[in-house]
Amino acid sequence: MNEVDKKLESIHEKILDILPENLSISSVNYEGPELVVYTSDPKKFAESGDIVRTLASSLQKRITIRPDLDSLLPPKQTEEIIHKIIPKEANVTSLDFHEDTGEVLIEATRPGMVIGRHGSTMREITQQIGWTPDVVRAPPIDSTVVSNVRNFLKQQRKERRSILERVGRHIHRPKKSSDKWVRLTTLGCCQEVGRASFLLSTPETRILIDCGDKPGSEDEFPYLHVSEALGAGANSIDAVVLTHAHLDHSAFIPLLFRYGYDGPIYATEPTRDLMGLLTLDYLDVAAQEGRTPPYTSEMIREAIKHTITIPYGSVTDIAPDIKVTLHNAGHILGSSIAHFHIGDGLYNICFSGDIHYRGTRLFNGAVTDFPRVETLILESTYGGRNDYQTDQKQAEQNLIEIVKTTTENGGKVIIPAFAVGRSQEIMLVLEEAMRTGELSELPVYLDGMIWEATAIHAAYPEYLRDDLRKRIFYDDENPFLAPQFHHIERGDEQRQEIKDEGPCVIISTSGMITGGPIMSWLEHLGNDPDNTLIFVGYQAHGTLGRRIQSGWEEIPVSGSGGRTRTLKLKFNVETVDGFSGHADRQGLLDFVKSMHPRPEKVLCVHGDERSTRDLSSALYRQFNIRTFAPKNLETFRFV
Amino acid sequence: MNEVDKKLESIHEKILDILPENLSISSVNYEGPELVVYTSDPKKFAESGDIVRTLASSLQKRITIRPDLDSLLPPKQTEEIIHKIIPKEANVTSLDFHEDTGEVLIEATRPGMVIGRHGSTMREITQQIGWTPDVVRAPPIDSTVVSNVRNFLKQQRKERRSILERVGRHIHRPKKSSDKWVRLTTLGCCQEVGRASFLLSTPETRILIDCGDKPGSEDEFPYLHVSEALGAGANSIDAVVLTHAHLDHSAFIPLLFRYGYDGPIYATEPTRDLMGLLTLDYLDVAAQEGRTPPYTSEMIREAIKHTITIPYGSVTDIAPDIKVTLHNAGHILGSSIAHFHIGDGLYNICFSGDIHYRGTRLFNGAVTDFPRVETLILESTYGGRNDYQTDQKQAEQNLIEIVKTTTENGGKVIIPAFAVGRSQEIMLVLEEAMRTGELSELPVYLDGMIWEATAIHAAYPEYLRDDLRKRIFYDDENPFLAPQFHHIERGDEQRQEIKDEGPCVIISTSGMITGGPIMSWLEHLGNDPDNTLIFVGYQAHGTLGRRIQSGWEEIPVSGSGGRTRTLKLKFNVETVDGFSGHADRQGLLDFVKSMHPRPEKVLCVHGDERSTRDLSSALYRQFNIRTFAPKNLETFRFV
Repeated sequence: MNEVDKKLESIHEKILDILPENLSISSVNYEGPELVVYTSDPKKFAESGDIVRTLASSLQKRITIRPDLDSLLPPKQTEEIIHKIIPKEANVTSLDFHEDTGEVLIEATRPGMVIGRHGSTMREITQQIGWTPDVVRAPPIDSTVVSNVRNFLKQQRKERRSILERVGRHIHRPKKSSDKWVRLTTLGCCQEVGRASFLLSTPETRILIDCGDKPGSEDEFPYLHVSEALGAGANSIDAVVLTHAHLDHSAFIPLLFRYGYDGPIYATEPTRDLMGLLTLDYLDVAAQEGRTPPYTSEMIREAIKHTITIPYGSVTDIAPDIKVTLHNAGHILGSSIAHFHIGDGLYNICFSGDIHYRGTRLFNGAVTDFPRVETLILESTYGGRNDYQTDQKQAEQNLIEIVKTTTENGGKVIIPAFAVGRSQEIMLVLEEAMRTGELSELPVYLDGMIWEATAIHAAYPEYLRDDLRKRIFYDDENPFLAPQFHHIERGDEQRQEIKDEGPCVIISTSGMITGGPIMSWLEHLGNDPDNTLIFVGYQAHGTLGRRIQSGWEEIPVSGSGGRTRTLKLKFNVETVDGFSGHADRQGLLDFVKSMHPRPEKVLCVHGDERSTRDLSSALYRQFNIRTFAPKNLETFRFV
Repeated sequence: MNEVDKKLESIHEKILDILPENLSISSVNYEGPELVVYTSDPKKFAESGDIVRTLASSLQKRITIRPDLDSLLPPKQTEEIIHKIIPKEANVTSLDFHEDTGEVLIEATRPGMVIGRHGSTMREITQQIGWTPDVVRAPPIDSTVVSNVRNFLKQQRKERRSILERVGRHIHRPKKSSDKWVRLTTLGCCQEVGRASFLLSTPETRILIDCGDKPGSEDEFPYLHVSEALGAGANSIDAVVLTHAHLDHSAFIPLLFRYGYDGPIYATEPTRDLMGLLTLDYLDVAAQEGRTPPYTSEMIREAIKHTITIPYGSVTDIAPDIKVTLHNAGHILGSSIAHFHIGDGLYNICFSGDIHYRGTRLFNGAVTDFPRVETLILESTYGGRNDYQTDQKQAEQNLIEIVKTTTENGGKVIIPAFAVGRSQEIMLVLEEAMRTGELSELPVYLDGMIWEATAIHAAYPEYLRDDLRKRIFYDDENPFLAPQFHHIERGDEQRQEIKDEGPCVIISTSGMITGGPIMSWLEHLGNDPDNTLIFVGYQAHGTLGRRIQSGWEEIPVSGSGGRTRTLKLKFNVETVDGFSGHADRQGLLDFVKSMHPRPEKVLCVHGDERSTRDLSSALYRQFNIRTFAPKNLETFRFV
């Protein structure tokens, strides 16, 4: 019997000691970070109230109770009972019985009502049917990605379970070393923006944090090929943690699977879905530009299949000596600060990922309370000494003013924006302005991936800002579903129609005018001096956006037959600063200032050389913390 | 045709362009760092004076000319001619014809006379016989190790040549990356003494520098098992450079071959032989202590077979982007400072190895002139703020005084000493004192490996201090051969006889009284209050030496049948400080002060935490250099 089996056996005995005599269990097993306990008395378990919580706290594990399969009612019969228990208003949209695990997946428009007060409805379901209910929210807007991911995972249930069992046994493997050290290796995004990637290592475990591309560069990858990264093979990595879905953090996660990795990826649920959306788009763009991407969509499916989602705040074992907890980072949907607790109180490291310190309309500000943090790896995008941004309130005023002026004069407004985050922020600003009457009602057209990204936001309201979530949850007032928002579904035909109609706002990808439907909008609307183009995000050097912003009035576009022709632009061009998804200089300083506890060391990364150096010296001066502005390919030892 | 063959072809053509019309070559090939040029006109080459130097400087390579085999006279005939050309006084002891390479190895007592003024005698030999002469010194004292190594390499000539060809092609492989970085990973001896090991890496090349054990610890190895070391297999290392033969730098070099390494080791010739001596002894000691060593003597032979020796000062290609030069370090025979020139003027790093700044009787002081040095990796054994040692002149006076007093009173002197370095230093002190009459003539008995180690010193006088070398070379006055030195060859019987004779000095291993023949001497002589034991080296905590030094008068020794009994010590115990092989605090500061150029960064290693920190801050304060006291397992990036 190997060590893991012995451990499971001793856990089995321990559970029997804890359980009251009338409860029995048949077996225990690991699935990913969870302990699955099988019982032939699922109903009694459900009746015993807090017993699962008691077990979880004595075993220090997340626990799932599963029924033995022969103890279950047939699905048909069960279905009726479920519908009787759950209130109509919950609006159950589907029931899906997993006969291999005894779980029934309940999709409902209002999952809170399926759960009930403190889980009472769920417990009642189990008591009556034996099956273990699991609840997901029916997306209020149809999201292709969310439903594709859910269907795919459903098809792959069997393989997925064997992955989880394998990962579970690996997480709970016996420790092999008495040596103690904690190290961090920088594989990208040091003294630069892009290709975020870090390796956290101990004598037991090697964790890769993020694995992104470098925008604007085709040949700068994270340093995966050096010995300490994948030199001993992709499976020398025990786990991957993804802080958020932006491509400069996620683009090469699927590549790991092409290299033979078959371990877990830990991320929030929306990060998993957005990673799917953005990496598929990454492949599309590469194909359009005639480049051969380093992996195929098959590898994206592998990545999704290997993703273990964890909610904010849940302390999760990912190795014999490492627990990870993800916390809201305020940057984009599902974005997280990853907190690693290493050893038994040995060391704690936080990776900020990308953060927004103050709240935005979409998200609460980044979390700053942690049980312990010795070292912080901090993004520095706007860490430079002059990187202060306009306050968002002022930015919103500026935006509304320009929209108002343009549309009152009969013109149309075009806003190029990133699909994820910025677009939804602008939608919320416009929705409120129209609702409060500050702006008269206007159609707002969403083009490119924006609609899909918005649907994903709507599917995960738990990840949105408190008051926004409250509006959606309790007040049944989903601003993304406001009637003025329209999705462009019929391509250029529809755009032509819109051109011929009255004033409106168009939000379209790509955000830096490097391709996508925004190109059509320039053709349709660029020639009219009544229209206005508003930049709401950073325009990188070398992009068409940057050129238009700096005053070009004639731009080259590709015409039919691949020829390039010139497009004359006569519309107004405006820039509204202050909608960044990143903390500015002040936000970064405030983030560290309000961290509780304050870290002993800060490594400033994810910013150009000047920004990381500036931020590093400012933090040192203000808080007397040891700070560093590392280069790529360095290894720091903390313990 | 692969890239290396193409390069060889173009070199072939280039040589033809350079050569005068009457000279021809048949082929060129790499053997290790050298370019071997084959010709059917070896005699004409020899006549053409400087042509080899011209080729070497235009090709920037070390060049060896070899005759085509069919152009050679038969050995018998050749032998006569050689003996005619070389003066009798050279005392040729053997001729060895290598028919595979057309080389003839000439061993002589006075190799300088075989070479002749500016190589004139050698050239004359080639002109007359066609064979390429190679000269080695006949060891003036029979050294088992030197003759074993030479015989072994002779037996293995064929395999050795194929290794050299493989290594040569690997050194001259095409560069594969356009990326530029230079990194150093600390695998041992940081904030500690022992297990010296570093990894120097660039996008092209990974070099391991030293690989030693940690004295006093059985389970602390260099961190070879981490990913960036041998994670991708032992052959992910391109070359090993060994600074000197002490076990804390060399003990695990043979282990690399057990792990599958089959690349080159670069070291001086005496370092190779001493490594053989010391690692074999390491296996013996392990066997005596009932431990299973991690490798066998077979692996030591592999290490010797893969060693490419380079003399001090010779700039040697060891990778497409790295040249190494070894310089005298003044520490032990053949010890070197390893200077690495990386890229084409990109970066320069010096590894001090262990150094002695001032000269000793045996060796010149460490070299301090380098073409360029940006970073110095500096030993810090005596880097602590109070680590100042007695001046050696004074130490010698103290030693002589004690020997004099003891022996004049009819007593015997016992000096426990390390076989390599310290023993020879003491021998030279005693020899001079007796020669000048400061001390009357006394027999000096050498026990343990000391005689063998001394024989190795005598075999390589080029590596000794200028005036010592001059005495041996030109004045034919080898102090190691002075008549008062006697080798203990008959074990305890001989020791008993010596006990019963008059006053004498005994120098015996082990230096810290942890085993070896010194144990017998304690039994024979420890009980006599007329005798004196003199410590001349550091006694580590936990050793018997340390206990005796601190005043123990009864010590446990293992008796017959494995039982432990008590030995009473009545002899005098003295300590003479000042014979260290290491620079003291002042020496380390002076070394950096006199370095030309002064490095920009210094990493203080090979010293305990306090010593490395003290030295690091002293160097920073005095010279305003960036200094570090790294931990093990860190990676520094310099470019």
